[in-house]
Amino acid sequence: MRRALTARFCASFNSWRGGSMSECPPPQVVLFVLYSEFVDLSPWPAKMPTARLRVVVNGEMIEYYDISGCYILRPWAMSIWEVMQTFFDAEIKKMKIKNCYFPLFVSSGVLQKEKDHIEGFAPEVAWVTKSGESELEMPIAIRPTSETVMYPYFSKWIRGHRDLPLRLNQWCNVVRWEFSNPTPFIRSREFLWQEGHTAFATKEEADTEVLDILELYRRIYEEFLAVPVIKGKKSEHEKFAGGLYTTTVEAFVPNTGRGVQGATSHCLGQNFAKMFEINFENEKGEKAMVWQNSWAYTTRTIGVMIMVHGDDKGLVLPPKIASVQVIVIPVPYKDANTQGIFDACDATVKSLNEAGIRAETDFRDNYSPGWKYSHWELKGVPLRIEIGPKDLANNQVRAVRRDNSAKIDIPMADLVCQVKDMLDNIQQSLFDVAKQKRDACIQVVHTWEEFAEALSQKKMILAPWCDEEEVEKDVKTRTKGDMGAAKSLCSPFDQPALPEGTLCFASGKPAKKWTYWGRSY
Amino acid sequence: MRRALTARFCASFNSWRGGSMSECPPPQVVLFVLYSEFVDLSPWPAKMPTARLRVVVNGEMIEYYDISGCYILRPWAMSIWEVMQTFFDAEIKKMKIKNCYFPLFVSSGVLQKEKDHIEGFAPEVAWVTKSGESELEMPIAIRPTSETVMYPYFSKWIRGHRDLPLRLNQWCNVVRWEFSNPTPFIRSREFLWQEGHTAFATKEEADTEVLDILELYRRIYEEFLAVPVIKGKKSEHEKFAGGLYTTTVEAFVPNTGRGVQGATSHCLGQNFAKMFEINFENEKGEKAMVWQNSWAYTTRTIGVMIMVHGDDKGLVLPPKIASVQVIVIPVPYKDANTQGIFDACDATVKSLNEAGIRAETDFRDNYSPGWKYSHWELKGVPLRIEIGPKDLANNQVRAVRRDNSAKIDIPMADLVCQVKDMLDNIQQSLFDVAKQKRDACIQVVHTWEEFAEALSQKKMILAPWCDEEEVEKDVKTRTKGDMGAAKSLCSPFDQPALPEGTLCFASGKPAKKWTYWGRSY
Repeated sequence: MRRALTARFCASFNSWRGGSMSECPPPQVVLFVLYSEFVDLSPWPAKMPTARLRVVVNGEMIEYYDISGCYILRPWAMSIWEVMQTFFDAEIKKMKIKNCYFPLFVSSGVLQKEKDHIEGFAPEVAWVTKSGESELEMPIAIRPTSETVMYPYFSKWIRGHRDLPLRLNQWCNVVRWEFSNPTPFIRSREFLWQEGHTAFATKEEADTEVLDILELYRRIYEEFLAVPVIKGKKSEHEKFAGGLYTTTVEAFVPNTGRGVQGATSHCLGQNFAKMFEINFENEKGEKAMVWQNSWAYTTRTIGVMIMVHGDDKGLVLPPKIASVQVIVIPVPYKDANTQGIFDACDATVKSLNEAGIRAETDFRDNYSPGWKYSHWELKGVPLRIEIGPKDLANNQVRAVRRDNSAKIDIPMADLVCQVKDMLDNIQQSLFDVAKQKRDACIQVVHTWEEFAEALSQKKMILAPWCDEEEVEKDVKTRTKGDMGAAKSLCSPFDQPALPEGTLCFASGKPAKKWTYWGRSY
Repeated sequence: MRRALTARFCASFNSWRGGSMSECPPPQVVLFVLYSEFVDLSPWPAKMPTARLRVVVNGEMIEYYDISGCYILRPWAMSIWEVMQTFFDAEIKKMKIKNCYFPLFVSSGVLQKEKDHIEGFAPEVAWVTKSGESELEMPIAIRPTSETVMYPYFSKWIRGHRDLPLRLNQWCNVVRWEFSNPTPFIRSREFLWQEGHTAFATKEEADTEVLDILELYRRIYEEFLAVPVIKGKKSEHEKFAGGLYTTTVEAFVPNTGRGVQGATSHCLGQNFAKMFEINFENEKGEKAMVWQNSWAYTTRTIGVMIMVHGDDKGLVLPPKIASVQVIVIPVPYKDANTQGIFDACDATVKSLNEAGIRAETDFRDNYSPGWKYSHWELKGVPLRIEIGPKDLANNQVRAVRRDNSAKIDIPMADLVCQVKDMLDNIQQSLFDVAKQKRDACIQVVHTWEEFAEALSQKKMILAPWCDEEEVEKDVKTRTKGDMGAAKSLCSPFDQPALPEGTLCFASGKPAKKWTYWGRSY
C-alpha cells in the first residue's frame, strides 16, 4: 500500500512542485503525502526532506524559510499552540507560578559557569559578534535555554526562607543551531517554548513539583493532542545536562517506528545552586542551598500530533486544539434554492458558534464542493457539515467525520447537541486509536537477539536493563546504521514486575528496571 | 520640593545601594526616588542612570541585567503586559487578524531589500556570525522588526483577490542594538511587542485599519494605563522608514517635560509591495499591487505608565492592569484577637476574589504593618485594606487609596460593592489627574521666541507649521543642547482652526497645520 502510494507520489511530485494553496494541485495528488511517511521510506537522514514536508506546508501549518532550520508558524499552527498555552498558563498560575521575561542574550562568562551544562549546549550556541558595522567587545550568546540566564538573579533575590519557593515561567523563543537534519516542529534551530524555573527549600517540594508539571504535560498530549504518552525517567546518559534527574513524557510514532521525547521536567538538584551560589537562611537561621527544577515543552508537541494522527488525506486535528472544529460547506445544485442553502449554512454556523463550537463556512464561489472537501480534509478539520437541496428540504445537515469518514444526517433541531457529541467522540476516538496503534508497537524482549529483531521491526521495546551508562553507550554503538542508533527512551514509572534473577538484555548483568528503547527523533 | 527630596535621596543613597526586597531599606529612604525624577534633575543623558531606576527595581518591575540595555521583566511587570495582551489579542481576533510566528533571524540579502527601511535600522542590527566554534557562511541578522522577514512570504501567499486581505500579527521579541542611553521599558536593546502586518486590495481598506488599530492603542493607554494620549500623524522626518505615513498616540511626561511616542500604526503604501513583488490578480483579472500596513506597541507602554503616575512613594498602578488590586493587611495589637483578625483578612480576600477582584493578604510575621504599608505603596497597589481590632469589633475594614491616600471605613456587608466602586473611581481619577497635568503642559505658540521660551519650560508645544522637512531639521539643529533637541511629536487629528495667513513658528512661511513639538524619549 505504502509503496503504491509512493510511486503515485513520485510520478506526480514534479507536476505541482511549488504550488500554493491558491493554485492548489488536484487533491488526489497531494493528499496521501503524509508528513511522516517519507521518514519511513527513505534512509535516515531522509534524502527527500521536501517531500516529507508537503502536508505541513499544504495544510498551511508551516512555511519554509530562507534560513535553513527556521520555519514560519502559520496561523493554522499558531492557533494550536495558543490553545495549549491557554490551558498550561492557567494551570501553572493556579500553582502560584508567575510569568516573567529574561533577556534573549547571555554573556559568555555566565553561560559557561556550569560545566556539564555548557558541554551539553556549547556546540549549538549561536553567537552575536557585531552590531551595525561594529564588532562587539565580547561575543554574546543567544539563549539555548535560560538556566544560566536566570540563576545569577535567583542568587540575588533569594536571601531567606520566606523568599522560597521562587517559581517562575516564561514563554519565549530559544535557539539551538543544530546541524542534524532539520524537521519542522520536531527539530528546528529556533523554536517556541515555555520554560519553568523554580527553587525550593527542600528536595521533597522540588520532587513533588517535577511530577505535578509532568502530569500537565501528559494532559497536553493525551487530553488535548489525543496522543498517548508514557511517563518515566530518563537514563543518566539521556538526562538534562547538569541536572540531577529528568522525567519525561515519551510518545511514539508507529508509522516511522520512532520514539519522541514529548516534554521534560527536570530536577536540577543543587548543582546549579552551588555554581550560582543560590543560598538562603533557613528557619533555624542556618545557611542552606536551594533545590531547583526546570521544565519545558515546545512547539514539537504540534509535530508529534501531526505524525501520530495524520493519514493519507493529510492532517487530522483533534477537536480540542483545532481552530476550526466544524467546516460548513454549501452544496448547491443547478436548479436548487442556492440562497436557501447559503442561509442554512449561516444559521448552522451561528447556532454552533453560540454554543461555543468553532465553526466556519466556506462560501468561496471559485471552488467546487468536492475541492473544498479535500481542502478541509487536508487541513484536518475534525467535522465537515454539508448542506445541499435534499438537506434543506429535510431540515437536516449531513455531518462527515474527518477521522473515520463516518457520515450521519443530523436534524437541525438536534444540531448543537449531536455536533458536540460527535466532537467529543472524535477526540476520544483519536486517542483510543492512537493508543491501540502505539500499544501494538510495544514489544517486550529479554535478550539481545529479541531486541535486535524488534528494533528491525521498528518497535518500542521494553527490556530489563542493568541501568549502567556504559551499557547504554554500547547499545548505541552496536545499533548504529542508516536508520540511526537505538537509545533508551525512558524507564516507565509504571514498572512491570521484575522477577529476581532477571538479566539485562544487553549486558547479561542483573537487571535493575524495565526500560523503553528504540530509535527516536 | 524636588530639590529637597533629591538631597535626602543623595544622602541616603549609598547606605542601601544593592539592597534587595528581602532586606528592604527603610521605606522613607527609597520611596521618593521616582523612576522618572532624575531625568529631570540631571543633564541628558542622565549622569546617574542607576538612581533613575530605583523605583522600577525596588518596585520589583525590573532587574538590571549584566548585558547593557537588557532588562529582566519581573512578574510584577509581566502581569501588566499580559493584561494588555489579553485585551489587544481579543480585539484583533474580532477583526479577523490571525496570529503567526516568523523566525527571529533574517538573511542579510532580504534585510537590505527596501533601501529606506534598512537605512533606518542598519546601525542597530545585531548580527550572528558564529555557531558553536564555527563561523557561519553568511552573517545572519536578528530582526529589528519583521517587514523584510515576512513580505517575501506575502508575495508567495497572495495570488488573487480572494487571498486578500491578509492580516497577520505576532507577539515576539525584537532587538535594536542602540547606543543611546538605555532606559528600562523606554529604550532597551531587546523588547517585547506585537507587530501586525497586513495587506489589502485597496488603499481605503488599509487607511481604515490604520485608524482602527490606532484606536485600540488609544484604549490601551487611556482605558487600561490611564494615560492620556494625543492621536496624530508623524512628520515626514519622523515617519516609519520606508512607509507611506505613520499615525501615533503621543503621551507626555509632565515631570520631565518630554513627549513619548506611545505606539504607532503605519500605512506602508505600496513601497514594500513593489520591492517584494506582492502582486495579485484583481476581480477584473488585472495585475495589481497590494496596500500594506504595519503596527506595533511595545513594553514601552509600561514605562510611560510608570512615569506618568508614579509619585514620591513609588509606583502607582491603575486598577485595571494591577496584578494585585487590593492588598489586605492584618493590624494585630498585643492583646487583640489575632486569629480573628487573620480570619477576617482571609474572609475579605475570599469575598473580593469571588467577585473577580484581584486581592491578596500579606500575613508575613517578620514585618510590621507600617513596613507593609510602605512596601505595597512602593509597588503601587491601588487599594490597601487594613483590618485591626477596632475594625473587627465594628465588623468593618479600613480602605486606603494609593492615588490620593483617602481613607474610608467600609462595613463588611458593603465590602464588594464599595471596593468595586473605589477601584473604578481610582482608575478614572488617575486618568483625570494625568490629563489635567498633561493639559497644563500644553502651550500654544506662534513665534520662535515663544517656542524657545515654552521649550525651556518643558512644555508640550502646539505650533502652526509649514510642514517642510528642512524646517524640522533646522528646528532640531537650533535646539540642540544638554537636554536634547526638540522635534515634532505629531500633527493632531483634532486640529484647532488655522486662520488664513497664519505663519509657521519656525520658518515664517505660511503654516499648513498645527503640530506638537517638544523634547522626547
